[in-house]
Amino acid sequence: MLKEWMPGEIPEKREFEEQLDKNRNRLYDLQTKIKEHRLPVLVLFEGWAAAGKGSVIGKVIKNIDPRFFKVATMASPSEEELRKPFLYRYMKQIPEEGKFTFLDSGWMEQTTEEVLKKKLTEAEYEKRIESVRRFERQLTDNGYLVLKFFMHIDREEQDSRMKGLLEEEDTKWRVTKFDRWQNKHYGKCKKVFDRYMKDTNLPSSPWYIIDAGNRKWAELQVLDTMISSIEIAMQNRLHSSPLLQNVFPLVKMPKLAEVELQGKELNEEEYHHELKQLQKHLGELHNRLYRKRVPVIITYEGWDAAGKGGNIKRITGALDPRGYEVHPIASPEPHEKARHYLWRFWTRLPKDGHIAIFDRTWYGRVMVERLEGFCTENDWKRAYNEINEFEKELSDWGAVIIKFWVQIDKDTQLARFTERQNNPEKQWKITEEDWRNREKWDLYEDAVDEMLKKTSTSFAPWHILESVDKKYARIKALKIVIRELEKHI
Amino acid sequence: MLKEWMPGEIPEKREFEEQLDKNRNRLYDLQTKIKEHRLPVLVLFEGWAAAGKGSVIGKVIKNIDPRFFKVATMASPSEEELRKPFLYRYMKQIPEEGKFTFLDSGWMEQTTEEVLKKKLTEAEYEKRIESVRRFERQLTDNGYLVLKFFMHIDREEQDSRMKGLLEEEDTKWRVTKFDRWQNKHYGKCKKVFDRYMKDTNLPSSPWYIIDAGNRKWAELQVLDTMISSIEIAMQNRLHSSPLLQNVFPLVKMPKLAEVELQGKELNEEEYHHELKQLQKHLGELHNRLYRKRVPVIITYEGWDAAGKGGNIKRITGALDPRGYEVHPIASPEPHEKARHYLWRFWTRLPKDGHIAIFDRTWYGRVMVERLEGFCTENDWKRAYNEINEFEKELSDWGAVIIKFWVQIDKDTQLARFTERQNNPEKQWKITEEDWRNREKWDLYEDAVDEMLKKTSTSFAPWHILESVDKKYARIKALKIVIRELEKHI
Repeated sequence: MLKEWMPGEIPEKREFEEQLDKNRNRLYDLQTKIKEHRLPVLVLFEGWAAAGKGSVIGKVIKNIDPRFFKVATMASPSEEELRKPFLYRYMKQIPEEGKFTFLDSGWMEQTTEEVLKKKLTEAEYEKRIESVRRFERQLTDNGYLVLKFFMHIDREEQDSRMKGLLEEEDTKWRVTKFDRWQNKHYGKCKKVFDRYMKDTNLPSSPWYIIDAGNRKWAELQVLDTMISSIEIAMQNRLHSSPLLQNVFPLVKMPKLAEVELQGKELNEEEYHHELKQLQKHLGELHNRLYRKRVPVIITYEGWDAAGKGGNIKRITGALDPRGYEVHPIASPEPHEKARHYLWRFWTRLPKDGHIAIFDRTWYGRVMVERLEGFCTENDWKRAYNEINEFEKELSDWGAVIIKFWVQIDKDTQLARFTERQNNPEKQWKITEEDWRNREKWDLYEDAVDEMLKKTSTSFAPWHILESVDKKYARIKALKIVIRELEKHI
Repeated sequence: MLKEWMPGEIPEKREFEEQLDKNRNRLYDLQTKIKEHRLPVLVLFEGWAAAGKGSVIGKVIKNIDPRFFKVATMASPSEEELRKPFLYRYMKQIPEEGKFTFLDSGWMEQTTEEVLKKKLTEAEYEKRIESVRRFERQLTDNGYLVLKFFMHIDREEQDSRMKGLLEEEDTKWRVTKFDRWQNKHYGKCKKVFDRYMKDTNLPSSPWYIIDAGNRKWAELQVLDTMISSIEIAMQNRLHSSPLLQNVFPLVKMPKLAEVELQGKELNEEEYHHELKQLQKHLGELHNRLYRKRVPVIITYEGWDAAGKGGNIKRITGALDPRGYEVHPIASPEPHEKARHYLWRFWTRLPKDGHIAIFDRTWYGRVMVERLEGFCTENDWKRAYNEINEFEKELSDWGAVIIKFWVQIDKDTQLARFTERQNNPEKQWKITEEDWRNREKWDLYEDAVDEMLKKTSTSFAPWHILESVDKKYARIKALKIVIRELEKHI
């Protein structure tokens, strides 16, 4: 890419000013159109140190109402960010529908810097590229416009800009040691940049190289590309994307109808005896995984009134409160709905060494969102693969993922609903919606069967908790959690 | 890809038969929908020798009316095909809108075989991958559904199938020496396949790996993917694609209004003297490039009545008729219009050592098709890059590309139109359409200026022939052709 690239020709002064004016006005007009079309626009500025990323962002945003954009200057990852998956801090920044996020700079800089500092092996680099390609593809497949600019200046220009900055007390701090190193090893850096850009030059999120030798000219090039790309993206809001083949090893799951529920029960005595022992054991493991900095993600899905809440309580009862969090997941709030559906889960990931328990999860995409038509057919059909990719990312990061489906039969649900209805203290737990969902039991059952079949990967398999006897389910859950944690620490 | 891939699970017998039936019927129904939606579907079968590519194609096409598909079995390139660019024989096979082409096998097999036989260096491989990615992207950007299947069997299965074939006199011939070699070096081949698939796994044309251990099961997997992909592609017929940045070095061109036409003239004597000498020289060069097998592509665009025909005659007058062809390009015929707009030019490429002269060209896309609305705005805006990529492909193949714009002013055109109108022998040369086009002179001039600016690459620059005096233009053309040929041989 960078090797073959040739700068375009700067128009003559009058034409230049005309074009700049026209583009600035056009971007101003487009911001409301973007809003109408609910298009999220992620603009990534990468490039050489001192190439003027910040400066061009500053110019571009002058044409946009502050309500419609956000600028994120990504410094080196913070202590906390280093304890999350690589993509976490970028995913966090993605814009809402109808808005812009400008990133100065993004996942390219972090990756190429790690390569140059020899922090990534070849195999790790290849895995990183795969993550990046999946990440960008997931964004564009879900309707994001991802604009990637590389701000390019030559070695001499970079050197002279840095010298200029170093001369002034006020700007000196802006030139880092690594920036100087970059200039000294310009050719080597260029090679690494070039390879990265080639590796991530996707049809749906191509690279645009900006001749950044002249700041105003850089602005014009950026505006040009932004405008034409936005116009195209607005035409494509209803675009569907191919359903990719599953590339992850799957574990065979039974259909729900085949799950034997009878006889899976414990008496009070057995239950309390086992509970005490298992919780003690889990408490010890929690300390160990905290010291070893293993992140753990436990997820619960299941029928209404299946006993998820009580089950979770028996897990958390064993844990040090400083080391876990429970995330009850309801319908997405407006600011969550306005983003990629996985965003609200990415942003709730635990730090390493911590446990996050999700009471309902991202699987809503292929259950309630599918059945209630909250997303398109293409959306939920794509989601099996997107979710597997998401969990693979977590697993590669080192997370232990334990997914529970809490299973009861229709009669048991009816009995529990009725009991809730008749018990004043439990009435808050039962709503009209629960009854409506119950009517769709068969549709849900089909959806769950498909979900179990398509997302039970070897690195994040589903576990079924037979919960007609809640005690049985609780003990089983504890045993599985302990077994899985022991496997990993 | 191949490394991580795990086979899916074969459904049980009854479900299997049900799904197969359902899919066969669905594909049958889809063929008319594809016709209505004018969707071209290119289905590529790649994979291991003896994996059953032919057999699964045979099964799939049973559900399609023979008018709607074509099967192309790609043997090793023929003598003639080896004298064309790598992609030529594949481009030739792309389907019309509303139809299928099944390729057994495609550009993957040719590439990986060349890698395994050490016929491609690392640099050549990388260039090849770039060509393939561009080729597939151009197809999908232009509305093609490109389905890529890799038929996978393990080493033992392959060995036993080949042994089976070798035992029978009737099937023995189907196992080549290279097939046996492949089985012996299965691991090495798998690595090369895996890399190729990773390198070409684009979001818009992803790979699908088919578990081909069981033929009926392979059919079901292929049908499944074909159906879901076709359904998605039909929803996307009006999809626009991003405008990619030009990555090729451009040569600065003047605007037409800046081209000085006055004083560019020759008297009869000068003309005939030069013509004779230049034609003699060109004739000699033609022999040399024939021996050196250099392919030459000369293209003419220009205003109506600018003198293209006479100019071409002065070139061909110097050439051995066995070594050149003139292609007059009119409106596309239905079978041409039904394909990628570059298809009719790909199929007219010269063999190496030959000269092809195009009287009007692929630049119609950004002139008449643009101005008359024969394609969408996104189509013609994308075309500058697509054309540069096309010409780069030709240039990399070794072709000399010489592009002429034959320039006159509006008054000269009027004088020539009037003369044609008044001269009974020339009246056939002037039509109502010529007069209509003349009314759009200014729009055309803008389009030509943009075209010259955006497609004058260093490997295929434009040359302007000032043709108010046709003699001057002819001599200039001959000189440029001679100069360019001498540069390359």
